[in-house]
Amino acid sequence: MRYFSDNAAPVCPAVLDAIGRANRLDTAYDGDALSRSLDAAFSDVFETPVSALWVSTGTAANALALAALCPPHGGVICHRDAHIQNDECGAPEFYTHGAKLLLADGDGAKLAPEGVRAVADAIVDDVHRVQPRALSITNATEYGRAYRPDEVGALGELARARGWGFHMDGARFANAVVHSGASPAALTWRAGVDILSFGFVKNGALSAEALVCFRPELAGLIAARRKRGGHLLSKGRYLAAQILAMLKDDLWLANARAANASAAAIAAVAGARLVHPVEANELFLRVSADEAAALRAQGFAFYDWEPGVVRLVTSWDQDVAAVAPIARAIAAL
Amino acid sequence: MRYFSDNAAPVCPAVLDAIGRANRLDTAYDGDALSRSLDAAFSDVFETPVSALWVSTGTAANALALAALCPPHGGVICHRDAHIQNDECGAPEFYTHGAKLLLADGDGAKLAPEGVRAVADAIVDDVHRVQPRALSITNATEYGRAYRPDEVGALGELARARGWGFHMDGARFANAVVHSGASPAALTWRAGVDILSFGFVKNGALSAEALVCFRPELAGLIAARRKRGGHLLSKGRYLAAQILAMLKDDLWLANARAANASAAAIAAVAGARLVHPVEANELFLRVSADEAAALRAQGFAFYDWEPGVVRLVTSWDQDVAAVAPIARAIAAL
Amino acid sequence: MRYFSDNAAPVCPAVLDAIGRANRLDTAYDGDALSRSLDAAFSDVFETPVSALWVSTGTAANALALAALCPPHGGVICHRDAHIQNDECGAPEFYTHGAKLLLADGDGAKLAPEGVRAVADAIVDDVHRVQPRALSITNATEYGRAYRPDEVGALGELARARGWGFHMDGARFANAVVHSGASPAALTWRAGVDILSFGFVKNGALSAEALVCFRPELAGLIAARRKRGGHLLSKGRYLAAQILAMLKDDLWLANARAANASAAAIAAVAGARLVHPVEANELFLRVSADEAAALRAQGFAFYDWEPGVVRLVTSWDQDVAAVAPIARAIAAL
Amino acid sequence: MRYFSDNAAPVCPAVLDAIGRANRLDTAYDGDALSRSLDAAFSDVFETPVSALWVSTGTAANALALAALCPPHGGVICHRDAHIQNDECGAPEFYTHGAKLLLADGDGAKLAPEGVRAVADAIVDDVHRVQPRALSITNATEYGRAYRPDEVGALGELARARGWGFHMDGARFANAVVHSGASPAALTWRAGVDILSFGFVKNGALSAEALVCFRPELAGLIAARRKRGGHLLSKGRYLAAQILAMLKDDLWLANARAANASAAAIAAVAGARLVHPVEANELFLRVSADEAAALRAQGFAFYDWEPGVVRLVTSWDQDVAAVAPIARAIAAL
Repeated sequence: MRYFSDNAAPVCPAVLDAIGRANRLDTAYDGDALSRSLDAAFSDVFETPVSALWVSTGTAANALALAALCPPHGGVICHRDAHIQNDECGAPEFYTHGAKLLLADGDGAKLAPEGVRAVADAIVDDVHRVQPRALSITNATEYGRAYRPDEVGALGELARARGWGFHMDGARFANAVVHSGASPAALTWRAGVDILSFGFVKNGALSAEALVCFRPELAGLIAARRKRGGHLLSKGRYLAAQILAMLKDDLWLANARAANASAAAIAAVAGARLVHPVEANELFLRVSADEAAALRAQGFAFYDWEPGVVRLVTSWDQDVAAVAPIARAIAAL
Repeated sequence: MRYFSDNAAPVCPAVLDAIGRANRLDTAYDGDALSRSLDAAFSDVFETPVSALWVSTGTAANALALAALCPPHGGVICHRDAHIQNDECGAPEFYTHGAKLLLADGDGAKLAPEGVRAVADAIVDDVHRVQPRALSITNATEYGRAYRPDEVGALGELARARGWGFHMDGARFANAVVHSGASPAALTWRAGVDILSFGFVKNGALSAEALVCFRPELAGLIAARRKRGGHLLSKGRYLAAQILAMLKDDLWLANARAANASAAAIAAVAGARLVHPVEANELFLRVSADEAAALRAQGFAFYDWEPGVVRLVTSWDQDVAAVAPIARAIAAL
Repeated sequence: MRYFSDNAAPVCPAVLDAIGRANRLDTAYDGDALSRSLDAAFSDVFETPVSALWVSTGTAANALALAALCPPHGGVICHRDAHIQNDECGAPEFYTHGAKLLLADGDGAKLAPEGVRAVADAIVDDVHRVQPRALSITNATEYGRAYRPDEVGALGELARARGWGFHMDGARFANAVVHSGASPAALTWRAGVDILSFGFVKNGALSAEALVCFRPELAGLIAARRKRGGHLLSKGRYLAAQILAMLKDDLWLANARAANASAAAIAAVAGARLVHPVEANELFLRVSADEAAALRAQGFAFYDWEPGVVRLVTSWDQDVAAVAPIARAIAAL
Repeated sequence: MRYFSDNAAPVCPAVLDAIGRANRLDTAYDGDALSRSLDAAFSDVFETPVSALWVSTGTAANALALAALCPPHGGVICHRDAHIQNDECGAPEFYTHGAKLLLADGDGAKLAPEGVRAVADAIVDDVHRVQPRALSITNATEYGRAYRPDEVGALGELARARGWGFHMDGARFANAVVHSGASPAALTWRAGVDILSFGFVKNGALSAEALVCFRPELAGLIAARRKRGGHLLSKGRYLAAQILAMLKDDLWLANARAANASAAAIAAVAGARLVHPVEANELFLRVSADEAAALRAQGFAFYDWEPGVVRLVTSWDQDVAAVAPIARAIAAL
């Protein structure tokens, strides 16, 4: 009955179990065995040697990543509707020490090279202007759109040619991977991504996200800034445990698959109400105020996105059967 | 057998249980019922209306508190050996946007008015110098010393007279309360403290600390900066649950009592080896390198503080019986 | 023959003379008699008690003003084409410690309440979003448009109602005053402006701008941040001397009158080429690449603003006779 | 009669003349011919290719240099009495975004390798501590002491071995060069210095200091941050003109020679009153309160450094004859 946010969903039992199993004496901070195993675990997932650090929020992950890629006097090109622009209370500006977000356009909060170039090419290359130094995309996007590997690759190629760092906000990376059918590698480093904010909390974890550095030399810098940002938890093993539980047996993919399937089931009945194609676990529906009220009267909770549009988010714990009532209710509007 | 750090101890079962019980659908961030109950819970503990926010590390708590009390161009007077100076990788400078820590002296990392005045009075009051704007003390201190209410009050009086904010780093506040026998109120706001970093993680929690604002009007500012620092967890109810579990039936005091008693039991046999009086759960012992090696050969783990001195920390899960072996081993050196 | 920038113009002889006359022993920094007389001099100009500080660039003036009005986690609403957004390499973000510029639209880089409200009202008032805390306008604007007192006042009223600080970038304030015929007071504090960056360099000074605080209690804060920004010159009397020379006998108005008249003389022949009404000393002309080349071949220097548009700026040292050649050349295109 | 500060001295006539000669149309900012000639002029002085940028204060020069050498999470080792620590209102922390100044000891505000190592070696190399990343010395020091080339070289060797940047605050570099008899090259890059803040204002300029980068690749970064700090003056040619006038015919050395000789003449009669050897243009004298009053009654102005000690500073415009009266007065105390 709840489609307000995947952040409102419970924690996946396997994650809670892993926390319980981690509940023994171990070294503090990130010196414990679980934390030290993250590099290997993510290197397996991404089929290349990576460095990975836990943090406790996606905002911290994004801001630390951007700070590693963009100097204070630089700019980060991102979509006008990006989470880093609109939903992080200026965390990117805080961690980068005042870098400017340079806002690009694109359907469904997706960026493509032409939109990025339109921003970059309008900036005279002199000391008076903040120069672009990094590019950040969200996958899946804030409107639940997923990038294909070739789409990421085209942006990665542009970033490489311009000498920009390339960050991917993967708060819903799992949903994007499931939708695309591509490998995690294909969607990231093979397409030029330097750092991925790999989200787990929206997908069933309690408080653990990962920063995955495809340029491992950045990890030392990020580790210092993580501590400086107050994000080096003293009992870090409980974060590592969550992540390892999510990676084990591809639980992260199974959870995302459930959420995506649920969203697709609702989308199937929503027809012309859909503002964006449904490629992850978010639906944006054209619904009048009266219709919204009718749905709420039936017990469904969701977010008013803008006048005439509501947002529904499905979660890892909802299967197609669970969403049948809302699908029926929408069909019946 | 482990006296390395109270951060290395396991999580208290009651805290894990509370996390499990919180594992249901609820609003994201800090809008949930548990998070919303923190103000009331801490107001009870402190016998006055307070605003309280969860954060996931003591470093974040300290840095957010200092940023609320000191402008970027100001200074924070603290002890030369304070955690905020030596162990936070510059988090105070990061969150305050470059305020300067002004280092004072005092035995056992305790400050007294004369030490604070020695620093402040040497600073000419002009625009060339960074002017003191806040005072920060640690209770219990980094050397396990506890302040009495009148000692805090003397500093609070000084801070008030000079117009400074007054912060207490209470990473081991529970141990200080237990030792002093004073009320939480007497040790804080009645003595002039504006914001307390109230630590739970070293005392049995998993990842939850609290910022307790005795000037509740500061809470809105801190809430914005908490988000901006990436510290607004999306599933914040699991942090609130930990804190509420620690406060319930004074578990926080029981845990600290156990750790303090264990430390006292070791101290009782350490005699002249003690560098500082033992008032909390930390012991600093004069031990030669050979003696340290002998202890380690028996399986005891601890921290080399400086040449000839080791640090032992007891934890909430160790009672007097549990520390009998190390007490015997030290006595036998 | 030069219309590239008013920054390229020489220094006004009266200013150089004043520097020469200041060339004697005096107290360092801003303790000298000239610096100390600025408050009184500007209080005369503005018909109200103000505090005024010299700085050496308009960028510093703007950034210091914004830092006094907007906290790090706040936002400054300004025009999309504002100098603070496009031409200061992120100085506002640097001095505010990462506040976000929130970009509004309006013809000729002028803001009006509806454009400002469109930005502000789209921002949900919660901790996830950067909240507007200040409003900044440029007068005359980056396109040479001048505000009337009532236009400023409507914005000032909005700012007051929302609790925002209100800053005016007056790099070409003199030109705006001359055009409007209004008093400096009517265009600023009587219309709600809190701080004015009062420009002199583009109008004939060498290196002195003024920050005029209509809320004098802000001056102490700004003075500390000026020093911290490296802008407290040790021989500040030479900056004060420049400003006092510009204010003496309304030289600042005479200079701006000359530049405005010259621009008007060119505008009179430019007809439909004008992109914006000419209200100060800047002209934006629709000129083809061939036409631009033809003008340059005759020795005229100017800036290519965007494809098909060039910018001409007249200066204090150009009278109507001086600009007759370019006016003829444009008429002859 | 004035020994308060070399900042209080007038501007050297040659500098004023040069400003007058620069008073013609030229390109704005630092694109003018004079600004563009600085690299060559300083490359001559230092016998190696350097990049040089003007700024208008020594504080800005120092802070920009440190920001180029030290990341926000790093530390700068400097003397406890350094200008950057005590007299810049936190400008280093502002420009570096919160780096920590790590305070070392040494006689006369001079650092030597052992004092620097004592600070550095006490810092455990882990993520909890701010790690040293740069070393900064002042030459001549805040107490008027000058470094020999081998002394600088020993520090430079240490910095190189540890991977630190090495900055020299040369607010009174000219006085140090004159005293040492060494070449500018020998005192800087040949001894390992990366960036020099080359002071001119205390030595007769109006508002121009230079940042001399011996690692020219740093100049681009510094240029961006100079603009961002509001230090790119739009009429920069007037700063370049001052510097070029000071370099011409070694005026900078002649001025410093005069000031040093005057100080030496006073020192010659001060005997046991001298707190520090006089090697530049500053004297620190043990003088009782009554004696200080007696000197002031005769019209001499100076600074009370600390109880029982006063500071006298001679300037470029004072020759030995000019200081004879105060020398006599001191001898007569």
